[in-house]
Parts: sequence; structure tokens; C-alpha cells
Amino acid sequence: MSSLSSQQPKATLLTAIDFYFDFASPYGYLASEVIDALGAQFGRQVNWHPLLLGAAFKVTGAALPVRQPLKSDYFVHDFARSARFYDVPFVQPMKFPLSTQHAARAFLWVYEANPLAAKGLAHAIFRAYFTAGRDIDQIDTVLDIAASLGHPRPALSEALAGVAIKERLHAEVDRALARGVFGSPFFLVDGEAFWGMDRLPQLERWLLEGGF
Amino acid sequence: MSSLSSQQPKATLLTAIDFYFDFASPYGYLASEVIDALGAQFGRQVNWHPLLLGAAFKVTGAALPVRQPLKSDYFVHDFARSARFYDVPFVQPMKFPLSTQHAARAFLWVYEANPLAAKGLAHAIFRAYFTAGRDIDQIDTVLDIAASLGHPRPALSEALAGVAIKERLHAEVDRALARGVFGSPFFLVDGEAFWGMDRLPQLERWLLEGGF
Repeated sequence: MSSLSSQQPKATLLTAIDFYFDFASPYGYLASEVIDALGAQFGRQVNWHPLLLGAAFKVTGAALPVRQPLKSDYFVHDFARSARFYDVPFVQPMKFPLSTQHAARAFLWVYEANPLAAKGLAHAIFRAYFTAGRDIDQIDTVLDIAASLGHPRPALSEALAGVAIKERLHAEVDRALARGVFGSPFFLVDGEAFWGMDRLPQLERWLLEGGF
Repeated sequence: MSSLSSQQPKATLLTAIDFYFDFASPYGYLASEVIDALGAQFGRQVNWHPLLLGAAFKVTGAALPVRQPLKSDYFVHDFARSARFYDVPFVQPMKFPLSTQHAARAFLWVYEANPLAAKGLAHAIFRAYFTAGRDIDQIDTVLDIAASLGHPRPALSEALAGVAIKERLHAEVDRALARGVFGSPFFLVDGEAFWGMDRLPQLERWLLEGGF
């Protein structure tokens, strides 16, 4: 054995970052714009997982902050300020929040054939909602966005109407909850959980130091 | 008029930072260890305001994270990790959370005579709870801590038993809620609200740039 074999870059041993998000989550959108670059900086792959926050809230008993008195105004203000802080384009959608199961299922359908293309679709859906206010809760909107990226509209339309993709998403969400995921964005790396866009500095330090 | 009068340092015109905290809040404790230095860096005074989170939660309908399934384990882990991140000593108290009205009232009583001494008392109470696990929900513990800093125990004891200080705290909390404060730590500066230890980077940028 040459000594080279023991000098392989440490990066090959590094586990992926699991990134959970709901397409209706402003902070999830902000995270989607930066997490791949952060992962790449530390030689970590990032696996994207769509989540349905409603399912998580049923377990935690949490309510959407925008539905809570006092908090509502604060959060709408903080969404936009946080977007400016991270230099990400953002326009508060009029229809907010909205249901995201069609978007999540479309992501999974594309993911099965091409995980990288699924990230592209996720970016397009997030941006359509959080910069152009498009109604991504509508199947037609999701199909339009996917088609604009070259995904075959009839095949995706048929898949979204079927039972298989619904069960697939259900299983994905159950798996996330079983791993302790309860919010968006949520990151898991080396078994360590980080909740929220505002935990990125801690996540970054974790990646830098291998824990702290 | 000499030109000097128009060249007074901008700092003299700067408004204070209002810092709200509950003595049972781990993130409030972390903030208490750094906020005065941050304010000083930008020539801003920091006014400390004890809050009773229970009163705020009644308005928002929020539940303590540590009482919510899934979130509980995450938060206890995050308290300690965040303390390491900010390099602040922290030991998770066994009795958590606990009621903080005696501590808050003692703070207000000292504050009336000497605002700076009240900050010293707040530090001592926070550290007694979050580094030594002392039961700061007990009047005797609060009196012991205050006495150790030279505050007259009989006078404080009498004040804490009276109606005036209770009404004073009640009014303080009502005023905080009326200003939109709903969590700990919570910062108000130039009419801008920042909730959470994790908004310090945004608060810092706000102070640096005068808004963003």
C-alpha cells in the first residue's frame, strides 16, 4: 500500500447535510439560497427533503407564528429584513401561508430520476412564490414551473394525480418526524440538529471544527 | 456659534436599546452577557426590562418550547450548544423553567434607586440560576443574592411583600406587551424589534448602518 491511500482527503469520509424545508416557509426559502454553497465550502453534499409543516405542527402542537397575535406583524417584518440581511430577493406573497403538497410531490417525482434537477425545480418553486407571489398551492402552477424547466408536463400531471406519489411524500414526512425534524429550515449533520436560518452560524462552526 | 457645536459626536443623539428578558430564559441569559458590550460598541445605552414570559404567552397563545413534544429535547441541547457558541458558562438547571416574579420585582426595586446596580443584580440572578442551578423562584434565594451584593435584606424583603412592587411589575409587563414584546430576549431600537439571541447579528448591522 502506498502512503497515498491513507492521505485521501478527509472530505471523502464526510457525511451529507440533510436539509428539510417547507415550500411555504420564508426562512426555508432563504436557506435554500445558501445551503449548497455552505455545504460545498466544507466538502459536504446537501440532500434536500421537502417537508409538510402542518404534519410537524400536529405533533408539536405548535401554531404558525403568523397566526399568533403580536407575533404576526413581527414575523412578516422579519421575513423581509432577514432577506435583506442575507441579500436574497424577497417579496411577501399575498397568499400566505399556503399548502405545499403538490410542490413537495413534484419535487419527489423529479428527484427519483435526477436529484440535481429536483434542486433546480425547488429553487424555481421557491422563487416563484417568494419573489413573484405565484400560487404554488395550485397543481397547474407547479406543472407550469416544472414544464418551464423541461420536465414533461403530462407525465408529471399523471404522477401528481396518482396514489404512489402521495404515499411517497407521506413516508418522507413520517421519516423526517421520526428523526426529530419539526421546523423549516431544519438541518441534520453528523447526527446534530440545527433548526432555523439563524442557526447557520452554528452549523458553519460545526462543519469547520467537526463539532463544538 | 462655533462649528464644534454641529460636530458633536453622533452618539449623543442615539436612542437607547431596550432589552427585555425573563430570568428563566436561557437565551435571555446569554443575551444579558453580551448586550451591554454591543451597545457600548455603538455608543448606545442599554435599558434592561424584566419580563414575565407567562404573561406574554397568554397573549400570543404560545407554549413553552420545552413543553412541546419533539422540540423539548432539541431546545435543551440547543441551550448548551448556544452557550458554547457564545462562550458563556452554562449549566442546565434541574428545575426548569420556574417562576421569576420575585427576581423581576427585586430588579425593579433596586432599579429605582440605582439602574446600574440593578444590572449587577440581574447578572448575579441569571448566573445563580444558569451556572449554579439555584432556585431563583424562591424569595429567600433572591434575597440572599441581593444581600451578597450589599443590598439591605430587610428593606428588600419588606418591599417584595408589599403591593406597590407587584403593581409596578404588572405595569412594566403591560407596557412591554403594548410595545409588541412577546419573547426573551427581545430588543427594541429606533422603533425596530429584534426577537431572540439569534437576531444579534441583524441588530449589530442595524446599529452599524442605522437600519438596513
